[in-house]
Amino acid sequence: MASAFDAIVAYDAGIDNVISYADITADKCASIVEGAIYTRPPKQKHNTAIMIGGSDLDKGEALKKAVQEQFFGRFRVSVMLDSCGCNTTAAAGIALLAKHHTLANKTATVLAGTGPVGQRAAVMLAQAGAKEVRLTSRKLARAEQACKLAEAQYHVALQAYACADDQSLSASLEGSQIAFCAGKTGVQLIKAEQWQNHPDLEAMVDVNTQPPLGIEGIEMADNNTLYRDRYAIFGGLAVGALKLKLQRACIAALFEHNTLELDSEEIYKRAITLLK
Amino acid sequence: MASAFDAIVAYDAGIDNVISYADITADKCASIVEGAIYTRPPKQKHNTAIMIGGSDLDKGEALKKAVQEQFFGRFRVSVMLDSCGCNTTAAAGIALLAKHHTLANKTATVLAGTGPVGQRAAVMLAQAGAKEVRLTSRKLARAEQACKLAEAQYHVALQAYACADDQSLSASLEGSQIAFCAGKTGVQLIKAEQWQNHPDLEAMVDVNTQPPLGIEGIEMADNNTLYRDRYAIFGGLAVGALKLKLQRACIAALFEHNTLELDSEEIYKRAITLLK
Amino acid sequence: MASAFDAIVAYDAGIDNVISYADITADKCASIVEGAIYTRPPKQKHNTAIMIGGSDLDKGEALKKAVQEQFFGRFRVSVMLDSCGCNTTAAAGIALLAKHHTLANKTATVLAGTGPVGQRAAVMLAQAGAKEVRLTSRKLARAEQACKLAEAQYHVALQAYACADDQSLSASLEGSQIAFCAGKTGVQLIKAEQWQNHPDLEAMVDVNTQPPLGIEGIEMADNNTLYRDRYAIFGGLAVGALKLKLQRACIAALFEHNTLELDSEEIYKRAITLLK
Repeated sequence: MASAFDAIVAYDAGIDNVISYADITADKCASIVEGAIYTRPPKQKHNTAIMIGGSDLDKGEALKKAVQEQFFGRFRVSVMLDSCGCNTTAAAGIALLAKHHTLANKTATVLAGTGPVGQRAAVMLAQAGAKEVRLTSRKLARAEQACKLAEAQYHVALQAYACADDQSLSASLEGSQIAFCAGKTGVQLIKAEQWQNHPDLEAMVDVNTQPPLGIEGIEMADNNTLYRDRYAIFGGLAVGALKLKLQRACIAALFEHNTLELDSEEIYKRAITLLK
Repeated sequence: MASAFDAIVAYDAGIDNVISYADITADKCASIVEGAIYTRPPKQKHNTAIMIGGSDLDKGEALKKAVQEQFFGRFRVSVMLDSCGCNTTAAAGIALLAKHHTLANKTATVLAGTGPVGQRAAVMLAQAGAKEVRLTSRKLARAEQACKLAEAQYHVALQAYACADDQSLSASLEGSQIAFCAGKTGVQLIKAEQWQNHPDLEAMVDVNTQPPLGIEGIEMADNNTLYRDRYAIFGGLAVGALKLKLQRACIAALFEHNTLELDSEEIYKRAITLLK
Repeated sequence: MASAFDAIVAYDAGIDNVISYADITADKCASIVEGAIYTRPPKQKHNTAIMIGGSDLDKGEALKKAVQEQFFGRFRVSVMLDSCGCNTTAAAGIALLAKHHTLANKTATVLAGTGPVGQRAAVMLAQAGAKEVRLTSRKLARAEQACKLAEAQYHVALQAYACADDQSLSASLEGSQIAFCAGKTGVQLIKAEQWQNHPDLEAMVDVNTQPPLGIEGIEMADNNTLYRDRYAIFGGLAVGALKLKLQRACIAALFEHNTLELDSEEIYKRAITLLK
């Protein structure tokens, strides 16, 4: 099903017409790309752009590659990858963190890190200067695979952690100053008792916008809200507000010229700029 | 297939952008609702609304319920249910009747009453004051089921009639002053000889806009047109013109605030207002 | 998949809202046609029109027939058939040829003539006055079938040629002054050595816009470009630029009144007008 969310954000970004497609994979994009690159003369090609959404980041990346391989000469348009909102959500969360807290020399744990948002959050934390970034999954093998992918693509070293119960969660948070909860809607990842007396944690982000939240005992409107005088919390609404602003800004930017490529790094930079 | 009809009417209602989906059932609406409730800030949430169409009223009602169950706090948008045009078509037909003819203490028969339009027409006739409302179907069991549903949902008592041949049709019309033909396009429900000397009938509505019409011997442009000095007829074009005006008005109203719910009763009220 | 190309061109033609459908065949168009013919009052019916695209011309023609059969009385809208861009691409190519070169008394060969563009190009060449028009396919039977269809529909006599190797290609071009290459993207139809010393050829059109082109040794930007002082070449970009202008003009024309029918002949006439 084509994303209503992305279409609405695109309209709010000022785009005149959104043409949505569902179930597009790398082998099915040729006619869409033809429509994008051939219909307008060189000086108007920047009036068309392609945004790749979907819920599967691997497929999204393969699709982006296929789209760009079809470009040639002046026959190209700007492209943005944001499967599952991965880049804009992760960038919003990390940019908020980075604005208020030093990331350099910190250890950060990304819980539920194998999903699109988690994968990107881990990479962005590493690129933003965190000393150690841990990526957790219920199964170690999946976490390891995500770490390998991130290393191959972004040249960052991530640590894989299994996180299947209270004990393994504690292990993944031990020595962590930062926690980023990238879990699915309505899945609690950290109980109140697991963070409210934690000796190392300083700041936590949760992207959830529907109860139960990823972190028990916080509010989704928390925006660098201090709990117990020491734990700074960023809830889903604070992240979401910046994510929406960022997504609109990125989509609008696609139409400035016809050669822009917006993925992880470019989108994170734009999040930082929006917060200045 | 997403409805072209509803999309065009929505554009004519002044809506900027219609995002259409096909085959959405209660278990598939989550991401659409997320797109509707999360993308815009509180003061702009009224700029998004959900209209539920489709050809199946039961599924439409289940979908409406699922959509509304996903709303919480300020995270909600206006919703309209009009599967198969049931509410707007029935409301237009009954409002036209009610403007020109007293419904109080009358007996009304809804032919082909188990479809979306027929079900709603029967309920609206009862709520508009008809003394007795008969709902017919080719099979008695289906008529009885529709009557039970209407009673459970709208607390109105309807009488189920089987209507499979000339004789049973006559029985369903005996003592009826009002007949409402809600049959499918091109299906004749009443022969000329069955109404043109009928001792009780006073007014008849037919929603058909393509020959053969539901009532033999009328014109689809009839608008309270008197036949034989005693039978007032409302044809499909008269009903359709008000239905379109009503549907546009209802869709436009969805965007006035973000908490409107437009279903049978609200839509009927708006039809009455449009005719004042 | 609904065509992005056609939607973008429609927006560029000034259309406010494009409602796209995929996989529509003659048996599935009823509700779309209802939406088109019933939603707007007589004086505004010209604000809706139907464009039939798709990649299959036979299905497109059957669909056009089904759409028009559903029209009655004033309940009709303008219709355009352009499956696979057949009419606009062929008309653009032939109109360019006809502007710069006499077609009367010439022999023309349409290579890869059984596709939508090739079929229409052959018919238009015949109607534009060519003495003999050859339609080639890798299999003779397919070429013969296309010729029969063209004769039945457009009352033009075409000659079927098999064209499966160098020798049969040479035979199909022998005595031809005109060659029209209607092959698929990236399929070379004529080698450089097969045309650069050809005794009869005078002008060639290639609709390809992605290398390798249909004619080896040309540029897709060629626009009546003379090679070896004697071969005038029209490449895919020259054809494409006029095709786009023509498609926009045709789509815009659909909304002038509600009874226009744009297919092969009308579209070719409009191409000629655009070049005047």
